Parts: sequence; C-alpha cells; structure tokens
Amino acid sequence: MATAGKQLFTTLEADGTLTVALEDVSFADPTHNQVLVRMEAAPINPSDLAILVGGADMENAEYMPGKFVARMPEAANAASKARHGLKLPAGNEGAGTVIAAGDSDAAQALVGQRVSCVPGNAYSQYCLSDADMCLPLGEHSVEEGASAFVNPMTALGFVETARADGQNAILHTVGASNLGQMLTRICAEDGIGLVNIVRKSDQVDLLKGLGSEHVVNSSEDDFMDKLTDAIRETGAFYGFDPVGGGTLVDTAFRAMERVAREQMAEYSRYGSNQPKRMFIYGRLDTSPTILTPSYGFGWTLSGWLLFPFLQSIGQETMGRMRQRVRDNLTSTFASSYKSRVTLEEMLTKDAVLDYRAMRTGEKYLVTPWA
Amino acid sequence: MATAGKQLFTTLEADGTLTVALEDVSFADPTHNQVLVRMEAAPINPSDLAILVGGADMENAEYMPGKFVARMPEAANAASKARHGLKLPAGNEGAGTVIAAGDSDAAQALVGQRVSCVPGNAYSQYCLSDADMCLPLGEHSVEEGASAFVNPMTALGFVETARADGQNAILHTVGASNLGQMLTRICAEDGIGLVNIVRKSDQVDLLKGLGSEHVVNSSEDDFMDKLTDAIRETGAFYGFDPVGGGTLVDTAFRAMERVAREQMAEYSRYGSNQPKRMFIYGRLDTSPTILTPSYGFGWTLSGWLLFPFLQSIGQETMGRMRQRVRDNLTSTFASSYKSRVTLEEMLTKDAVLDYRAMRTGEKYLVTPWA
Repeated sequence: MATAGKQLFTTLEADGTLTVALEDVSFADPTHNQVLVRMEAAPINPSDLAILVGGADMENAEYMPGKFVARMPEAANAASKARHGLKLPAGNEGAGTVIAAGDSDAAQALVGQRVSCVPGNAYSQYCLSDADMCLPLGEHSVEEGASAFVNPMTALGFVETARADGQNAILHTVGASNLGQMLTRICAEDGIGLVNIVRKSDQVDLLKGLGSEHVVNSSEDDFMDKLTDAIRETGAFYGFDPVGGGTLVDTAFRAMERVAREQMAEYSRYGSNQPKRMFIYGRLDTSPTILTPSYGFGWTLSGWLLFPFLQSIGQETMGRMRQRVRDNLTSTFASSYKSRVTLEEMLTKDAVLDYRAMRTGEKYLVTPWA
Repeated sequence: MATAGKQLFTTLEADGTLTVALEDVSFADPTHNQVLVRMEAAPINPSDLAILVGGADMENAEYMPGKFVARMPEAANAASKARHGLKLPAGNEGAGTVIAAGDSDAAQALVGQRVSCVPGNAYSQYCLSDADMCLPLGEHSVEEGASAFVNPMTALGFVETARADGQNAILHTVGASNLGQMLTRICAEDGIGLVNIVRKSDQVDLLKGLGSEHVVNSSEDDFMDKLTDAIRETGAFYGFDPVGGGTLVDTAFRAMERVAREQMAEYSRYGSNQPKRMFIYGRLDTSPTILTPSYGFGWTLSGWLLFPFLQSIGQETMGRMRQRVRDNLTSTFASSYKSRVTLEEMLTKDAVLDYRAMRTGEKYLVTPWA
C-alpha cells in the first residue's frame, strides 16, 4: 500500500546539462523504526543550493512547469564529476505530520504528531525518516519547526567544538546570517565571547540589537584594526567561516596573529606560537581559498560538516542539543522566511534567481501542499 | 673574561634595506647549565635562508668584505614588518667543541667534547648553548654532527606526529631533499608507508636506490594518476609539505579524495568523510597557498614547526629521538654538502646566489675557522 506523491530530483549529465524536475514517486510503507512524514514545510538553505543549482547559468536556463534545464559551466561541471548521471533528491530538512510508522515503539509513538526531520529529500510531498532523527514539535507549527535541524545544530555544534578544544570565544565570519543570529543568541546565553564579522552597517545594528558586543563591518576602512581589537578583547583565536573562497579566512588568521605578536616578548621569524584555528563549513564562494604566509606556522584550517560532527559526539550530547532546540524553537532558534513557494514555484525563474542570491534575511520556505 | 669572535647579523630596515654583516662580538662566560662552543661547522638550511636573504634582490645587492646590502621588494618587506630595525643572529644549528662551561654537572661533563647544538646564532665563531640541548658527538666529526638537529628531528617528528594521530603512512611532497632522504630511511626502518613526490627522473632513481617503493614524479603527464595509485596502495591520507605556496597541498588533497571516493558506496555532495590531513612545515614558495573546493570538508591543513612540536612531546620522547640520531649519525641521518665556505665567503655574491637556489643535494656548510 505505497503512497504516491511528487518529489524533486536534480540530475547533472556529463555534458553539463543540469535538469531539476518534479517526478511522481511511490513512497514505500515505513518499516521497523521508520516513519512516513507528509512534508509541509522545507527551507532552502545554502547547503541545499549547491546540489539544486550549483554554479549553473540560471539566467539563461529553460524553465517549464515543474522543471528547469540549465547549463553548468565547464569548471563547475568538471568539479562535479562524481555526480554525473546520478538522479539525486534534494532538501536536507523540513517538517510535516507523521501519517504512518513501522512497528517499533519509537516510530509508533510519533503517529499523528508534527515533527521536524532531516531526510535529505525534503523537497517532496512525503519523506521516510528514521524515528530517532525526528524532533516532535508539540504545539509548534510545521513552519516553526521546518529549520529546526541544520542551522540550530550547526550553531550549537560550533560551541561544542570550541569548548571541546578548550576555547571560550569564537569568531564568525558571517554574523548576520540566520545561523549567525542563532550563534549570537547561544553565545550570549552561554557566556561565550563572540566576534561577528558583517558586510553592512544595518547588519551591525541588527546584531547589536541582539546584544552582540563585538560586531565588525568588513566594508569599513578600519576593518582590520577593529577586527584586531575585537579578537584582543575576546581572545577569539578560533573561528568558523561558510564563505570558503577568497581571503576571508586569511584575514581572520592575520588579525589573530597581530594580536598574538603584540604579546610576544621577542621577534620570531616563524611567527607566534599562539594556536590559531579556523573551520570552513560552507562554500558560499566556490573560488579557491587563499592563504598567505603572514601568520607563521601556528595555525590550523579544517573543513567542518554537521553530520560527521554529530556522528562523533554520541547520543547523549546530541540528545541534549536537540532538547535545547525544541525548548527554544521560537526564541534562540527562530528562523524567518522571505517567501513561501510550492514545489512548482521553486522551479520558476523568478524564484530561482531570488533564492540563489542567498541574501541575508531572505530565506525561502518550500510548502509542498500549499 | 669574555671571549671575542666574529658573528653574523642580519638587519632589515623599514625602508627595505637588508644588511647582513659580520661583527666583532664579545661572548659572555657560560653560567649554570650553559656551555661555550667554539663553532666549527654550521649548515645553511632552507629555514635559515628566510632570515638571511628572504625575498631580497640578491642579483643587484652590494657585496663588500664581510657584508652585503640588498633591497627587499615591497611585498616581502611589508610581510617582514615585525623585524624592522632588529639586528638578528642567524644559523639554527651547528657543531663545535665545548671550551668552557657553567658550574652544573651536565655543563661541566661536556668540556672538551665535540657537540652539536641549536643556538640560533650558529653563523658565528662561538655560541652559548644550554647543555641539555647539546648532543655529544663522541668519535663523530663536527662535520658529521653539524646537521644533527633540524633535519633529523624534523623527519623523526613527522613520524611521531603521524603515529600519535593513528597513522601508518605518510606523504612527503619533496621526497629527494636531504630531509626527504632521511624520512625515506626512517620509514623503511620503522615499517611506515611513504609516498615520495619528486620533480625529476634522477630523483626517482635516487629514492628507489634508498629502497623507496612509492616515488611519484610531478613532471610526468600521468602524475595525478600515479599519485592516486600510491595513496591507494599505502593509505597515506596524511602528509608533510615544505613548499607552502601554490597548489602542491591542493594536489595532495585532491589525490587523497580520489582514493576516498572510490571507496564510497554512494555519492555525497559534501565529499568523502575520509579524514585527510596535510602539514606545511616550510615556505620554499612564499606565494599564497591555494585550496580549491575539490575534496569536501573532511580535511585539515596545519602549520608544523619543530620547536613547538618538541616542546609538546616531553623530555623522554625527545631523549629517545636524540639517542636514535646519535646512534645513526652517519647512516640514517647522514647529510652531505656541496660546498664549504667561511663566514666571509658565505657573504659573497657567488655563494649567496648558489645556496639561495636551494637545489636538491647542494647544501652549503659554513666553517667559521677554516
């Protein structure tokens, strides 16, 4: 007694043709610990965009009802070789109502409840999810719960990662993002020092309004001096960056080293021994990361991803993090959306060009049944 | 009763004038655990060159007896701001004879012995050193002992670092260097897998002659495929690079990721979860390090420096490493030199242009009393 519904798929061919289209799909009945969720809201996060549109030429794509076909430029296509010919689902997370469940107690307990989940195919009318990965939303709406996983767990994950490394202050290179605002609230609640980098003066105001003490505007002439001051005052030699490409990480390392050198008794040709650490957790800029030889050898740069991190921390820590998200879904972890689109509407030119711009505060929400 | 002798100093002024000159210096009598070493041999390592000539224009420098004056280009000069106006010694390591000692038993025990040491001012007729940092050379000559510290301890340090991280294979991006040859012998002795990257076919022969199984020539058309094969066969997802600038680290990460993806059951837009780790331990190329977004988020890149590493491992491990160096000074840890120069000769145009080229197998040895 399978369930029929629409689901979005994205396919990149070896010749660079990107096809994103809705298909009629048959969803299998849930077994054991699985639940079947009728999906009602799913955000379009930066992490979803890579697989949805990547570097494709969306200005000149061909748009049809429930489908678009675009060209992927040579370089981006070559870099995506591993997915050539694969028809992939999209949509990391979302929320909906559990309409069927496998025979486990955990799965059965969720029947009829609103839950958020992380199925990986959230741009769909139905999803199968493991019951253990569902967060019951209680009285919260599906819209309130749609973004309950990726950004909240990532922001909490930064704090967990920093603390496990003995750090009590963090630098974040995109302070005004949805995730950045959550991180600002978390750090205020937990007494963690935070340096927020933003690009515009209204973003400074936004974060100051959330109580952020150290907001530095990269568009100002004295950015480097102000960043250095903020690092000195907080001791934030540890940071997270979702941009990846260009010199933002390099700038952070240089400012950290300036502070470290101020504290050195004598010159060393090798730079300071102050450990400086940055994590790249996204690729908003897909150009290469540029690291200049300006901060000696006491630095470490790593990639950071949510799922490997969650696998590393164990059930207990993860349970504590999820409980905190659930308890503060409309405060600390609140998300807001600029537009709501159906599965069909998310494939139109107007929508695609708007959400792929990833402007701060302009997140889209997909509502498959609206 | 101070001792008089010549010592080399290097001074970079704010206007970019680099002056390297011998001066007559008075060496204080050793106290407590110090010894005074009459320095007889000191190598010019790549790590010494940065402070000796850096990026200066040595073709058009002014050469005088016991002195040269060169111009540092704008960019290199700005990057060296922290040393402007400072008169700095040079020469990390060397060997000589202990001619005086402080009153500690350890210091007194070294009087009259040949030792290698790491004074930081080895381009000098005399040096003061802590007795604990001296390696008694026994029957070995000062020339055999001159390079007993930096390269041997660095090569052993790579193996210690890798093992502490649970690794049993290493990639080294400059296999044919003096250090690379030591690492090849150490890995063979210890049963550690090793992938050696070289640039020339005669370097392939050299390393094969030392018993290296996996030597990959970056000048060959099939370099990337061969590198991938070598990583697959050894499991070397962990490597060390002294070049720093350019795309060599990126190439290593890309090859590691190719192997990791072969082993993945299904496609992930985030790349493999296989941890990939590289260390930059030098800056033979001072251009920026370029990291492309081609290997997901499961990677870490760090700087690596000998002295912070030694400080982190404790006396016992360090003692074990030094004993191994002493026991194998003319085999595993043997160094060879192209030329011997006096303190005056090392400041001549012919010498400078030759040793700053840092060609494989063409290391210089400074002999202050020859």
